[in-house]
Amino acid sequence: MYKTDRSVCMMKEKANLKDRIIEESLKLFSVKGYTSTSTMDIIEAVGASKGGFYNHFKSKEQLFREMLSAARKIWRERNLYQLDEEPRPLLKIQKLLENYRDRYLADSKNFPGGCIFVNLAVELSDQAPGLAKEVSTGFTRLGRMIKRLLDDEKKAGGLGKNVNTEDVSNMIFSGLLGACVLYTSDKSKKRLNSTITSLISYLHSIDSKGRV
Amino acid sequence: MYKTDRSVCMMKEKANLKDRIIEESLKLFSVKGYTSTSTMDIIEAVGASKGGFYNHFKSKEQLFREMLSAARKIWRERNLYQLDEEPRPLLKIQKLLENYRDRYLADSKNFPGGCIFVNLAVELSDQAPGLAKEVSTGFTRLGRMIKRLLDDEKKAGGLGKNVNTEDVSNMIFSGLLGACVLYTSDKSKKRLNSTITSLISYLHSIDSKGRV
Repeated sequence: MYKTDRSVCMMKEKANLKDRIIEESLKLFSVKGYTSTSTMDIIEAVGASKGGFYNHFKSKEQLFREMLSAARKIWRERNLYQLDEEPRPLLKIQKLLENYRDRYLADSKNFPGGCIFVNLAVELSDQAPGLAKEVSTGFTRLGRMIKRLLDDEKKAGGLGKNVNTEDVSNMIFSGLLGACVLYTSDKSKKRLNSTITSLISYLHSIDSKGRV
Repeated sequence: MYKTDRSVCMMKEKANLKDRIIEESLKLFSVKGYTSTSTMDIIEAVGASKGGFYNHFKSKEQLFREMLSAARKIWRERNLYQLDEEPRPLLKIQKLLENYRDRYLADSKNFPGGCIFVNLAVELSDQAPGLAKEVSTGFTRLGRMIKRLLDDEKKAGGLGKNVNTEDVSNMIFSGLLGACVLYTSDKSKKRLNSTITSLISYLHSIDSKGRV
């Protein structure tokens, strides 16, 4: 279909506005929380009009879902970075832990409030359980991914027969979330590093192929 | 000093009002968060007057501090329950983990929103860093307590020489906080139990005196 320069330009602007609203809501929800952030706060922060906002989002809830999806995309980009270059599943988990520390929590541009998933899960659990559940599915997926990697490592002979992958996965996964809460509360990179280093040492200790 | 029945009665009522305000703020801050709860919300929930509130608290911040102190008292009552009856430091940590699961997170009467310290630390980190820091000192103390117990156990010969108590303490402590975030987000006692059981198994695995 033929489009004039002007209509192409307007479409681009529209797409940009949508992206900018999502980007801004991600920051505001992360810092102020979902409940304390009104759609007007977002509209004003972006410099849009009410009409411009509702052209793209039927409701604050719809924006929440699209924001969640965008935040997950960033999460994957940061945390799964170069995982496929690691030859062993155990090394993939180690890389995930390092990425979480160096490429994710450190990203104060996109996530000035720390890990937005932890923040929202804690905030929404009582106030909007439906939305909290959507956040929580991400945790479940991450827990399963760690478990699957450990099972793969065990199958490949990289873990002793007495290693319970359910236990190890619980330790790594809850340790990661705990590290995030601590970092959010005190912004201490030293403490974050200490916790992540301990989780990695733990991985080393169960590795039957020698130091990972 | 001589007091009439009436003045004694009024003093009691005053004390009760203060306690009720603290109790109610603990619940509201836990569920709705500190920022989203106004002093008027608390006054209305208690059924007091503005004057009654300001008789006891100069500001919302002062109430926050007294609430924090009350919450810590409950935390200690629940989590340190019967710890002194355990003969070994390692068993005290196990008991702490069990208390955290059975006597603390399960207390939906006092803490309907999950662990108030995790909730407030996450909420306030960007909005009121000074208050978040006060919350965070409690985490630091808990981390140190676990580390100290592990050091005592090691001195008593209950841990192998190659066990790094800093690492173990990081694992247990961050695992505990992570378990709390997970439980807050999905209220699944099954998952909570699974995580706490894994943390206890981990303690067993480093115990050089056999199964704790």
